[in-house]
Amino acid sequence: MITRKEYESAQRRAADLMRKAGLHISEKEEKSIEVVDFGLGRLDEEGVQVLTLVQTERISVKVLALFPHQTEPEHWHPPVENDPGKEETVRVIDGTVYFFVPGPDTLSRGFVPKGKDACYTMKHEVVMKPSDQITLEPGKKHWFQALDGGAVMFSFSTVARDALDKFTDPNIVRITEIVES
Amino acid sequence: MITRKEYESAQRRAADLMRKAGLHISEKEEKSIEVVDFGLGRLDEEGVQVLTLVQTERISVKVLALFPHQTEPEHWHPPVENDPGKEETVRVIDGTVYFFVPGPDTLSRGFVPKGKDACYTMKHEVVMKPSDQITLEPGKKHWFQALDGGAVMFSFSTVARDALDKFTDPNIVRITEIVES
Repeated sequence: MITRKEYESAQRRAADLMRKAGLHISEKEEKSIEVVDFGLGRLDEEGVQVLTLVQTERISVKVLALFPHQTEPEHWHPPVENDPGKEETVRVIDGTVYFFVPGPDTLSRGFVPKGKDACYTMKHEVVMKPSDQITLEPGKKHWFQALDGGAVMFSFSTVARDALDKFTDPNIVRITEIVES
Repeated sequence: MITRKEYESAQRRAADLMRKAGLHISEKEEKSIEVVDFGLGRLDEEGVQVLTLVQTERISVKVLALFPHQTEPEHWHPPVENDPGKEETVRVIDGTVYFFVPGPDTLSRGFVPKGKDACYTMKHEVVMKPSDQITLEPGKKHWFQALDGGAVMFSFSTVARDALDKFTDPNIVRITEIVES
């Protein structure tokens, strides 16, 4: 869980990163930024900030902001009823993104969050700069992180059903709980 | 039709507009920009420049650049086999876009290209600035244009089958013919 104050502070930090990346986002959009701590309560280590631009029954477009040294945990998009699962293309807008997918272990510049070896099993590192993009077929495990300076990227996908995403870490809860104190 | 030289010049002008809008696009992407004259041979009046970022069997993401006073002709996305038709969200990145959709005639700041009244039947004007966006259901007729300074926008959509789009102007040919002389 996260306090309301921490949540709103993270929204502002994320909006700053997005604007620094050259994106025009409205005040209303800034207030809609979703701060995701994955129920782990250590947002600055494992988390992501998400601005949803389009969400229909057919497609989804999001802007993702990572704070410096923040990691989005390993996950995949499973089939849901008639949908074979979310197909997603991530394109870097600003900063450098360290992306991990199935393949030979080439982890060198990124890092597995401390004490979480069992929860990060993909070790094939793809270093992505602005205008680089990667397409993830449904079911493909992936995690990603920023180092110094943070990073901002687009996620273009088929319909997103975030609450049904699967995570390697069994302690993860996808929907952030905010406490008002 | 359009000459190779005109085509490449338009690609460069479009890439300049996209970069001025704050987008990071690679050299390879610049060379892939599609210059569309709709077979009308008057690109600067009726045309559009398109950079496709994502094109799969499920989704499509494009960057559209309009030169100053250039108009994308009225069209719509029809059903194709099992697909109810392309659903599209256009989001302005830079400049002002004058968008025309079904509704009461409010055309005031935009203009119908000279002599083409029969080909532009939607007169409900929506003025869009950076971060404004509009979602078009399949089958909804629309056209749009830029005035001074041109404009750059995203098109986020379900699968695009541009060659099957329908246009009000019967003279339009969607695929640009390039002559080498």
